Amino acid sequence: METERIVVLAHGKFPDRAKTALGVMRYGDQTVEAVLDRDRGGDRVSDHVPDVADAPIVDSFADALAAADGDVDALYIGIAPIGGGFDESWREDVRAAITAGCDVVAGLHYFLTDDEEFAALAADHGVELRDVRRPPEGLSVASGEAGDVDADVVLTVGTDCSVGKMTTSLEIVAAARERGIDAAFVPTGQTGIMIAGWGTPIDRVISDFTAGAVEDLVVEAATDHDLLVVEGQGAITHPAYSAVTCGILHGAMPDALVLCHAAGREAIHGYESFPLPPLAEYVDLYESLAAPVANANVVAGAVNTKGFDDAAATEAVESVAAETGVPAADPIRDGADRIVAGVLDGLDHEDVDGGVDE
Amino acid sequence: METERIVVLAHGKFPDRAKTALGVMRYGDQTVEAVLDRDRGGDRVSDHVPDVADAPIVDSFADALAAADGDVDALYIGIAPIGGGFDESWREDVRAAITAGCDVVAGLHYFLTDDEEFAALAADHGVELRDVRRPPEGLSVASGEAGDVDADVVLTVGTDCSVGKMTTSLEIVAAARERGIDAAFVPTGQTGIMIAGWGTPIDRVISDFTAGAVEDLVVEAATDHDLLVVEGQGAITHPAYSAVTCGILHGAMPDALVLCHAAGREAIHGYESFPLPPLAEYVDLYESLAAPVANANVVAGAVNTKGFDDAAATEAVESVAAETGVPAADPIRDGADRIVAGVLDGLDHEDVDGGVDE
Repeated sequence: METERIVVLAHGKFPDRAKTALGVMRYGDQTVEAVLDRDRGGDRVSDHVPDVADAPIVDSFADALAAADGDVDALYIGIAPIGGGFDESWREDVRAAITAGCDVVAGLHYFLTDDEEFAALAADHGVELRDVRRPPEGLSVASGEAGDVDADVVLTVGTDCSVGKMTTSLEIVAAARERGIDAAFVPTGQTGIMIAGWGTPIDRVISDFTAGAVEDLVVEAATDHDLLVVEGQGAITHPAYSAVTCGILHGAMPDALVLCHAAGREAIHGYESFPLPPLAEYVDLYESLAAPVANANVVAGAVNTKGFDDAAATEAVESVAAETGVPAADPIRDGADRIVAGVLDGLDHEDVDGGVDE
Repeated sequence: METERIVVLAHGKFPDRAKTALGVMRYGDQTVEAVLDRDRGGDRVSDHVPDVADAPIVDSFADALAAADGDVDALYIGIAPIGGGFDESWREDVRAAITAGCDVVAGLHYFLTDDEEFAALAADHGVELRDVRRPPEGLSVASGEAGDVDADVVLTVGTDCSVGKMTTSLEIVAAARERGIDAAFVPTGQTGIMIAGWGTPIDRVISDFTAGAVEDLVVEAATDHDLLVVEGQGAITHPAYSAVTCGILHGAMPDALVLCHAAGREAIHGYESFPLPPLAEYVDLYESLAAPVANANVVAGAVNTKGFDDAAATEAVESVAAETGVPAADPIRDGADRIVAGVLDGLDHEDVDGGVDE
């Protein structure tokens, strides 16, 4: 399959508040031809982010198209305002992309396909508007079959939202592939879906179908791969999002769990009156909640130490390992091989269905 | 408020497979003028169900209207085929009801308001089509405020689906009112909503809004009542529905839990390869999952002993009490006063916010 050549829209937010843009640039197979940020037009990506492929930052889609000699397949919306709406200041870029024959990919709550102008323009130019946050048709309740797949299933679970579950999942897949394991990422959120090009936004499905939607993804991915790493969402202790977390845990029926934690986080982000329980309680809670449907233990910890100096980061990782009793690492700072080792060791001890052949 | 005079449609299923019809007849404030079941036309309700108000069973809505001298306010659809579709053999009854100026109330997955004929006919006759399974607009994520309400909040939780959570909730409310407590039922499923005339079908809301939708109900009911009994859904160990259960647990932020169990049930209904864990594990699981957001203990057990003889029922109830360490009763066979006593005792011990004044 040829690599998709894309332009990433990140007006006013690149790089620090453009999580989706950075995720796609760091982990996607796409070739990024340009980034749109009218506040940084003329800069280069490498001026701001050292560890992704370089590209020009330009003011508009028209400029991006010129910079790429017209060779662009798609425009990705790489940011989201609070509330997930469509910012009207982006309209001219989306219009220009469609008119140039490019697909447009977005993970907003506002669906491009419901926008009359974009829908008509897309039909005229024969391009696709991909709203990755719109759940597919035909979802249903879980049948309980995810536990029967041949592949081994690892799920990332968290102590809160925004602790690095997607990043950890992707880094585990990359490190497992380094070891020659046929591993695949199973996306459950909009950025993961943009990166991988498939998946279901589990937070948008009907509550009754939460587990069923995850089961579908696991069953599908298991036909082609030996080790699946399912992207977790939320946290089982989260006052607002625990339903999604619980549905993913039971729908995926994992063989092993990787606990993700942001070093220094002491309360639920945005819900500061709810302190995080001790990590050992998270381990107990996830394992005992999984137990009725899946024999899954926490086999490794992933620690997000962003902003810590090296000594503090090392201390934070060691502290997570000590509190959970399993190997831990910061998958960005340390690489995920130690986490993969913990996963393989855990799978081995649990005598699972043998999908991974080392 | 004047009592609504209703006709309940239960073709081919009255009484044993007409759970919604029976729920409304047993617990609703409505006056049932007639039941529609063309297989039992000419019988009376009292021929089949001893403990609800009697009414004629007739073949069609036209017959029901005649039996009630034209005095009918609404037709309730009291059954659901597998899958929740609309059975075309009911169309003539719905048409006749609308034409006679009656509202039509349904809890199907198929929405009457989306049916072109019914929608047009309802507009012509100025009647309302109430699809209680359609979630309201404007739902959002939980803010975490249900724990701050002045009322005490009790949540019924289960060992499986269909174990009697709605019935238990309604019986607790009735028994609490007998004691002079201003108690209210908080409905989260379609039958409960039909009975109470308000509520949200939590299994149909967007996964991300599960807790938020429950929080809205609790906050609303707490403005008017001292003790809220929230109708639970599913079970925390259910391979398909646990997301809904978890969202209700965290969204309601209860002060006490009542564990509902169907005596003799050994595996998840319809998912027989998943055995029920021991009751003591359910108690631990619900309490430890609640703990990060709400200090709620299991304070009573409700046992559904339907089909058991008296001796076996007594034994089943005693066994639940022994396994959980809290008072237990079959709310239908024994009444719910023992359960209410457990609730009040539990609230007392937990030194809650004092909404209940005895």
